[in-house]
Amino acid sequence: MGRGRRPTEQVRGEVLAAAGALLLDGGMAAFTVDEVARRSGASKVTIYKLWPSKGTLALEGYFTTVEAALEFPDTGDVQADLRTQLHAFVDLLTTTTAGRTVAELIGHAQTDPELREAYLRTYSSPRRRLAVERMERGRAAGQLRPDLDPETVVDQLWGACYHRLLVPDLPLDHATADALVGNLFRGIGA
Amino acid sequence: MGRGRRPTEQVRGEVLAAAGALLLDGGMAAFTVDEVARRSGASKVTIYKLWPSKGTLALEGYFTTVEAALEFPDTGDVQADLRTQLHAFVDLLTTTTAGRTVAELIGHAQTDPELREAYLRTYSSPRRRLAVERMERGRAAGQLRPDLDPETVVDQLWGACYHRLLVPDLPLDHATADALVGNLFRGIGA
Repeated sequence: MGRGRRPTEQVRGEVLAAAGALLLDGGMAAFTVDEVARRSGASKVTIYKLWPSKGTLALEGYFTTVEAALEFPDTGDVQADLRTQLHAFVDLLTTTTAGRTVAELIGHAQTDPELREAYLRTYSSPRRRLAVERMERGRAAGQLRPDLDPETVVDQLWGACYHRLLVPDLPLDHATADALVGNLFRGIGA
Repeated sequence: MGRGRRPTEQVRGEVLAAAGALLLDGGMAAFTVDEVARRSGASKVTIYKLWPSKGTLALEGYFTTVEAALEFPDTGDVQADLRTQLHAFVDLLTTTTAGRTVAELIGHAQTDPELREAYLRTYSSPRRRLAVERMERGRAAGQLRPDLDPETVVDQLWGACYHRLLVPDLPLDHATADALVGNLFRGIGA
């Protein structure tokens, strides 16, 4: 079957994989639709039919590429699962180029409203939802306070890690992740 | 007494006040040493004698300007004091231009190593220290866990607010601040 005959879903997946890999290779500075087309074998016309802008393509590619590494386990123990996922997140940020890439994306988003909107819609909001859904199951299982707002926990686990990534006064490592989880489950009061 | 005779400490204070006000008025884009000189009445030579670069002047001016609003109260109740200070921080970020300003500073710092170094040294690290000192007094007073690492709480209170500022999927308000403090003092487990 010729390349032009690939089903749309297959092309979609191949373009996203190429986009994510390119972003992690060279950051936003090196990210062009031309290069994504070259790497994926899809035409630019096809790519622009499927994604309205370079920014949304980059972000959806990033999301797709890191999704597997950031899967939320469900062993039935929400505290253990949050810790496991947070370790994977810390590893991704500190041992691959993803940390630098996402820091630059958030950085540019502060002065680029279009990128900000795309980042929220395509990356941070779906990732937030995955975390909240895992915590809602934990709450339903009686492992989290019934009146807990899981959204605030997203800011105190992943948000706290982003804080160390973006304002690196102190290192980001597994010990940090464990302390963040411990503070929330044990409480910080005497 | 002529302007040239002002004691260095007075000049220093006036230049920092002018720098902080200018930064809050127009952000980094409008920030020039020329304009700080004009507003403060100090000469550029004097300013460059006291600050090695435009970035350090802007950041120290910002720090000085917001310091009063962000003072850490000490009523003897560390939980109440953290909540009071966090409310003041949220107000500063959401009701003044400080929120936009600091978001842009952190944003630019992701691709400007000199600004990043200055931000850490001149702003985030001293502010972190003030928070940690208040918590260390609370720990000494038996109100916080003896084995608590207060640095991680900085990431889970102020860092969590910065997360909502920089990645604004959800609003940042007093209710958010209260939930962040509540999660840490009550614990999130059932």
